[in-house]
Amino acid sequence: MNKQQLFENIKRKKTFLCVGLDTDIKKIPEHLLKEEDPIFAFNKAIIDATADLCIAYKPNLAFYESLGVKGWIAFEKTVNYIKDNYPDQFIIADAKRGDIGNTSEMYARSFFDELNIDSVTVAPYMGEDSVKPFLLYPEKWVILLALTSNKGSQDFQLTEDSNGERLFEKVLKKSQEWASDEQMMYVVGATQGEMFLDIRKYVPNHFLLVPGVGAQGGSLEEVCKYGMNSTCGLIVNSSRAIIYADKTERFAEAAHTAAKEVQEEMAEQLKKII
Amino acid sequence: MNKQQLFENIKRKKTFLCVGLDTDIKKIPEHLLKEEDPIFAFNKAIIDATADLCIAYKPNLAFYESLGVKGWIAFEKTVNYIKDNYPDQFIIADAKRGDIGNTSEMYARSFFDELNIDSVTVAPYMGEDSVKPFLLYPEKWVILLALTSNKGSQDFQLTEDSNGERLFEKVLKKSQEWASDEQMMYVVGATQGEMFLDIRKYVPNHFLLVPGVGAQGGSLEEVCKYGMNSTCGLIVNSSRAIIYADKTERFAEAAHTAAKEVQEEMAEQLKKII
Repeated sequence: MNKQQLFENIKRKKTFLCVGLDTDIKKIPEHLLKEEDPIFAFNKAIIDATADLCIAYKPNLAFYESLGVKGWIAFEKTVNYIKDNYPDQFIIADAKRGDIGNTSEMYARSFFDELNIDSVTVAPYMGEDSVKPFLLYPEKWVILLALTSNKGSQDFQLTEDSNGERLFEKVLKKSQEWASDEQMMYVVGATQGEMFLDIRKYVPNHFLLVPGVGAQGGSLEEVCKYGMNSTCGLIVNSSRAIIYADKTERFAEAAHTAAKEVQEEMAEQLKKII
Repeated sequence: MNKQQLFENIKRKKTFLCVGLDTDIKKIPEHLLKEEDPIFAFNKAIIDATADLCIAYKPNLAFYESLGVKGWIAFEKTVNYIKDNYPDQFIIADAKRGDIGNTSEMYARSFFDELNIDSVTVAPYMGEDSVKPFLLYPEKWVILLALTSNKGSQDFQLTEDSNGERLFEKVLKKSQEWASDEQMMYVVGATQGEMFLDIRKYVPNHFLLVPGVGAQGGSLEEVCKYGMNSTCGLIVNSSRAIIYADKTERFAEAAHTAAKEVQEEMAEQLKKII
């Protein structure tokens, strides 16, 4: 999917919500445990209940890998289900990968070639050759970690170099030598509030993937105030607040309601630009 | 496995070689492709041929994930094969993971609980809470990326802060607040030569996992000169130079010969300390 198509979807559906499929076998409703593949059954119900309210899904690989082979089967089924039934959804493999060149090539092959996923999150620590192999696939995206939503983001990402430039700023600047806003996005945590102003100085036109609204405490209004640009430029993720809105047999309905609430707030915010 | 046991293995076997199981379906001998599980068949032969010459195996997850479900099955079979037949081998899941706390917990569960692997490589970019969940398992290890072997290591890892401290040094310092040398190791690329002197100023007693000898061009002699400590302190990885030493039906024999050559050089180096 290219940038223009993504923006068209946002305008048409009046939402820039990404639903995070952080599906934990220990947290899904009990009645699903009797299904042959409980993780996929849960995801399928969540996807059907929210597809009209979001423009992206983000399965976090950790939750699938923790179940080993079974988890990978559920992951692949989930990706294929979205591709087959909701082809306008942008799929993000939240994998936070990053390795030496020949290894990153393998990851790229896995996500883009084999699974035909739209984008993958990548960690910048190992630099250019760990990122570039992901950029060889047209209309596929790298979403590079810049300023994350967690407390530990302060340990290294805010370190200033001798010119007063912080590490996340260096990541934003340097990585623009590798790809344009047609192939690269950045992870910026919603918990970072006014930092979006600083981020936009470096990447005025890029899409940002924004986790941390909801369970992690970030404010959608603040993110939009400081982070939205003329093509929206935001994909805001919510995981737990939507997928675990209810733990009974009505979980999918509750997910719909929770997503609907966010979507309506987003439609309001989008009035500023469309 | 604890640090003392690891050192005992090194002394007994006169080697600190780690064989990297970066098994690529496109690179293994053709005759294996008719096997039910070619990746596992290859790994099993390599392991049987090298187990007396090394103290660790390091499967890089990328190579397994690129094959999807089949790859995960091969990965799990490989880990179990090592555990069952060579219980004194230290297993490193080269995964370079790192995510927010609740997600890192899932990864830790996956590698340490489900698979009983000894250690996992972790990327430091997201800071403390992305690393700590891996430290809750006694006698399991985090191997944190510090100064990697690739060209891109120069992009961010060498950035100096306002006090002249480079990012990898900050990672070495800060992370020692999280765990001791009984639970933490660091990745330091063999291509970094004299940088080992700087590394040892910060972590004199830690084990270092050293990739980059062999195909990537690092020198074992130099690594030992600048990096070895009184408990060896080095696990030197070689992947391609050993596992792809030959592409015919004699690949395992050739892997043995290649590993033997490294082991003999290591035995020489170990005379300095034992």
